[in-house]
Amino acid sequence: MQRQIPEVVVSRLPMYLRALALLKSEGVEFISSKGLGDRLRMTPAQIRKDLSFFGKFGRQGRGYNVGRLRSELQQILGLDKNWLMALVGVGRLGRAILDYKGFAPEGFKIVAAFESEPDLIGKTVSGVQIEDIADLETSLKDKKIDIAIVAVPSSDAQVVIDKLIKSGIRAILNYAPICVRVPRGVRLQAIDPVLALQSMTFYLKRD
Amino acid sequence: MQRQIPEVVVSRLPMYLRALALLKSEGVEFISSKGLGDRLRMTPAQIRKDLSFFGKFGRQGRGYNVGRLRSELQQILGLDKNWLMALVGVGRLGRAILDYKGFAPEGFKIVAAFESEPDLIGKTVSGVQIEDIADLETSLKDKKIDIAIVAVPSSDAQVVIDKLIKSGIRAILNYAPICVRVPRGVRLQAIDPVLALQSMTFYLKRD
Repeated sequence: MQRQIPEVVVSRLPMYLRALALLKSEGVEFISSKGLGDRLRMTPAQIRKDLSFFGKFGRQGRGYNVGRLRSELQQILGLDKNWLMALVGVGRLGRAILDYKGFAPEGFKIVAAFESEPDLIGKTVSGVQIEDIADLETSLKDKKIDIAIVAVPSSDAQVVIDKLIKSGIRAILNYAPICVRVPRGVRLQAIDPVLALQSMTFYLKRD
Repeated sequence: MQRQIPEVVVSRLPMYLRALALLKSEGVEFISSKGLGDRLRMTPAQIRKDLSFFGKFGRQGRGYNVGRLRSELQQILGLDKNWLMALVGVGRLGRAILDYKGFAPEGFKIVAAFESEPDLIGKTVSGVQIEDIADLETSLKDKKIDIAIVAVPSSDAQVVIDKLIKSGIRAILNYAPICVRVPRGVRLQAIDPVLALQSMTFYLKRD
């Protein structure tokens, strides 16, 4: 059985992965925890500690094998398969999300999109045909969707999220700027530019 | 002088603030650290510890005064003033950002937008006139911009960010999915849906 791994450690692995991808593209084969730390503005000790949750990766004096560490982290994060996603809300933000080129290369595919606006239902946007939100539950199951992306107005977000969970969705990427409640066992990540801005102003103010 | 406050503590304050706003809108006047913790899925001890960095807020037995804690946190985060922002990159994502209704009510105003695409320069989008990116440095200074939002393609992001820093910008919200390097003293927050997705798949895989 795996040790209990702190969420904050898991949340850092994707950043490691991205730094390793960049190193690989630069032709770097081995990197020390110090070298990786310099790139990520973290201490080498923190990096060694984080990775120690998942096994032994580095070799004394030589550092980490970039390619191997990358593929091991990919496996740990479950990124060695494709994940199917559904988008709920195809307004301007939703269309930008459908159009976003960053998902597919990482194994995340938007294969369904839902709207309540009659004018949009049936139209195809960025290769995805928009479905009636009334068909959400059936369609999510038929298409074996793993992850839902919520891009509806704030006032509708909690209702939509409740429906998604009722339909069996266990991972939600939420763009609506609200404080959402989800039951245990459901993962929710908020993409929230205001929260990000608000934690920078603290430092701007002090400077 | 203020104690050194861990970044992760600062990054949680905006979530507290949002939960407090919601409580206020529900008419709740006092909340215990347990009550706040239940909303945020955090332990009461963690909440008390986080807040203790900034002073004494709660009162034994009565909990926190929702309105007062909220306005104190707003002040701590520098949210008692308006912040002026500039957007760089007015593609589909940039237009969704310009159109985003969540910034202004929180005191964040996009007052400038820059593009390199000649067809877009001079046009007005969501009330903001698009300027030539060649005028970036002068315009940022003229308009006393505090924060820049980067929504250019990945391949241009590092160059744009370097220019922004050279122009004196100290806080950047980056939507380009790259591992960006910024010097000390510059704050950068990434809005990166792929990183968010990648830390959820870890749990999906295990369930």
